[in-house]
Amino acid sequence: MNAAAQNAPVEAAFLIIGNEILSGRTQDRNLSYLALALGKIGVQLAEVRVVRDIEADIADAVNALRARYRYVVTSGGIGPTHDDITTRCIARAFGLPVVQHPEAVALLKDHYKTDPKGLNAARMKMTEVPEGAELIPNPVSRAPGYRIGNVHVLAGVPAIFRALTDHMLTLLEGGNVMHSAEVVCNAREGDAAEGLSALQDAHPDLDFGSYPYFRGGKFGVSLVVRGTDADAVASARQALEVLVKSLGADLLDARPAAETSA
Amino acid sequence: MNAAAQNAPVEAAFLIIGNEILSGRTQDRNLSYLALALGKIGVQLAEVRVVRDIEADIADAVNALRARYRYVVTSGGIGPTHDDITTRCIARAFGLPVVQHPEAVALLKDHYKTDPKGLNAARMKMTEVPEGAELIPNPVSRAPGYRIGNVHVLAGVPAIFRALTDHMLTLLEGGNVMHSAEVVCNAREGDAAEGLSALQDAHPDLDFGSYPYFRGGKFGVSLVVRGTDADAVASARQALEVLVKSLGADLLDARPAAETSA
Repeated sequence: MNAAAQNAPVEAAFLIIGNEILSGRTQDRNLSYLALALGKIGVQLAEVRVVRDIEADIADAVNALRARYRYVVTSGGIGPTHDDITTRCIARAFGLPVVQHPEAVALLKDHYKTDPKGLNAARMKMTEVPEGAELIPNPVSRAPGYRIGNVHVLAGVPAIFRALTDHMLTLLEGGNVMHSAEVVCNAREGDAAEGLSALQDAHPDLDFGSYPYFRGGKFGVSLVVRGTDADAVASARQALEVLVKSLGADLLDARPAAETSA
Repeated sequence: MNAAAQNAPVEAAFLIIGNEILSGRTQDRNLSYLALALGKIGVQLAEVRVVRDIEADIADAVNALRARYRYVVTSGGIGPTHDDITTRCIARAFGLPVVQHPEAVALLKDHYKTDPKGLNAARMKMTEVPEGAELIPNPVSRAPGYRIGNVHVLAGVPAIFRALTDHMLTLLEGGNVMHSAEVVCNAREGDAAEGLSALQDAHPDLDFGSYPYFRGGKFGVSLVVRGTDADAVASARQALEVLVKSLGADLLDARPAAETSA
């Protein structure tokens, strides 16, 4: 393990502003994209919250998360409609006024130059940011995201969220990348528990996890090991395979689709 | 609107204990099931948190959520392995000792009666609960969930989570059921914003939301109205359709699959 690998991990939180997620109508598609994208630059997603479109709730969550984590990412609520209140809430959290960002105004004026009526009062709302924010460009639909302090404010529409995330990554300072390996088998989790615990005790620098599944009437378990040292993760993977075989179970190629566990 | 409809809504929070969700390896499948199930008995999911398998983080989140909401549901971390620490954390949050629940012991002894070696120390962990907990039966794999105070502790494996949730609903006192209607169209959200805002102002008892999507290069928007008065929601739906037509846009049957927004 090199010296850098002993540094504290870089951690981020994700705040989903989403009545639509909380009602169950919409399945979130952004969390997993963000987690994997951050992971690639060595930033670990450490907490997620989903809150309602309520000003105090959003501002409180932003303040709790930005104080605790190196980076915060928010999604949703920066569009043109009355329920898009994120910018007001972020400004309140930081104690900053909301201002029109001149670059955002220029972007939207350009976008609507052949349809000047299109740049109505509702859309002008999308040029507003907390004072001092830096824009995050949106190649999909122009209206930008932004960053203020350590908080990165992105749109919720998945195609736009992904594009904004990709740009945001260039603004972050990452840490050590987490490596992981997964061994899937038809053992029962309770039979693997003792051996897995022994492996965890023997390798305190690694994180071993166990994720049972139940699919088509059959149980199985996915054993996962994570750590910043790729070689150690690779050896641990072999140790997990030895454990599975010692239980008389079979190694499988992958977890069955559409049934995985939290 | 009847008198009951003016009562405060019954609110719940969901705590997902999930390194596996935070790493991005696993897509959560439980949030939406829970939200819709609670909705059917008039309980609104008001907040969701996803936290790591860290004892203090879990206990702090449990305490924050149980103080604020009528009900709390947790998922994950009640299996047999070393990383299953939820019961210890819930007990810590409540200041209670962890004890073996005699009914849980009897259930597992019965389950493993033809394979007594199967009921090893790891699996006996699944009989532990904070003192005073009431079991929630698990028809899928026997090891039960439980409730302590207003906190309902469920397994993360989706098939088991769903079975435990269905039983849990019988233990909760619901409120007024939220009705909702959705109008999907190919209008641009920014063109609908002004009319939507006017509808919101005219109907303060209803919640109007606007969820743009972008799919196959085309934008559209889903306009949603929610409220406890079914007749008011039905009229509002008609008003949304009138709004869409006034914009010269087309009503669509549904949002395109696989691309919805937060």
